[in-house]
Amino acid sequence: MEDGRSPPDELLLYVCVTCRKAGEPEGDMRPGALLHRALRAAVNATDEKGGPAIRVEPVECLSGCKRGCTIAISGPGRWTYVYGDLDPATSVDSILDGLRRYGATANGLVPWRERPEAFRKGTLARIPPFSLTSSDRTS
Amino acid sequence: MEDGRSPPDELLLYVCVTCRKAGEPEGDMRPGALLHRALRAAVNATDEKGGPAIRVEPVECLSGCKRGCTIAISGPGRWTYVYGDLDPATSVDSILDGLRRYGATANGLVPWRERPEAFRKGTLARIPPFSLTSSDRTS
Repeated sequence: MEDGRSPPDELLLYVCVTCRKAGEPEGDMRPGALLHRALRAAVNATDEKGGPAIRVEPVECLSGCKRGCTIAISGPGRWTYVYGDLDPATSVDSILDGLRRYGATANGLVPWRERPEAFRKGTLARIPPFSLTSSDRTS
Repeated sequence: MEDGRSPPDELLLYVCVTCRKAGEPEGDMRPGALLHRALRAAVNATDEKGGPAIRVEPVECLSGCKRGCTIAISGPGRWTYVYGDLDPATSVDSILDGLRRYGATANGLVPWRERPEAFRKGTLARIPPFSLTSSDRTS
């Protein structure tokens, strides 16, 4: 549903830059920082053609430390989702695919089968948008 | 820090009403629904004396299903936290204690040692407030 919200539609992609990955040796940069760098580069290289703008933001800890690397996606009027078990080397395309599908909805609720596997398997939590009324959240 | 935000300060306490508890037999009401009922009753019975208003909201699924019962706490300008491993019979006082401490901060960041044990052990995720700039999130 396109509903002409104002202010301009924007998606937030939070990336934990302090995330480690379980079982991997420590390198010069944390895996979370590598994922942030890769996602920022990929978003900058993408021409979204009318979809919501994507803002990639570094965060120090999304409290999903046992499931690193972690990200969160959010946007005005949309449910917020937190995902873990991501990998800077292999997850960037899946994250951007999931984010595009998320941005194509008004409320952030993408049908389960249409979510990339990384999102289906890596969901840590979701939080309702502030604007929802009680009846919206339980219907 | 009290900063005179407007509109009036309010805390949101989301409670998943569809949560089960691992290893427990199914009763007439889901443990999440019991937790919601207990928290709503406890909040209604509390005289907050000048703290932010607390709004208890039912949600169908916070996607922390393996760590039920789950809640999320949120508020304008504050980090959002998602907690799991809660129990309708034993967690209500701890949740309200943690919520009061959260409400006494401007940004939702309660020092680790001051958080109730249920919050220290049950954290599933946290998400920055929308209003933060990039430098706030990584400092």
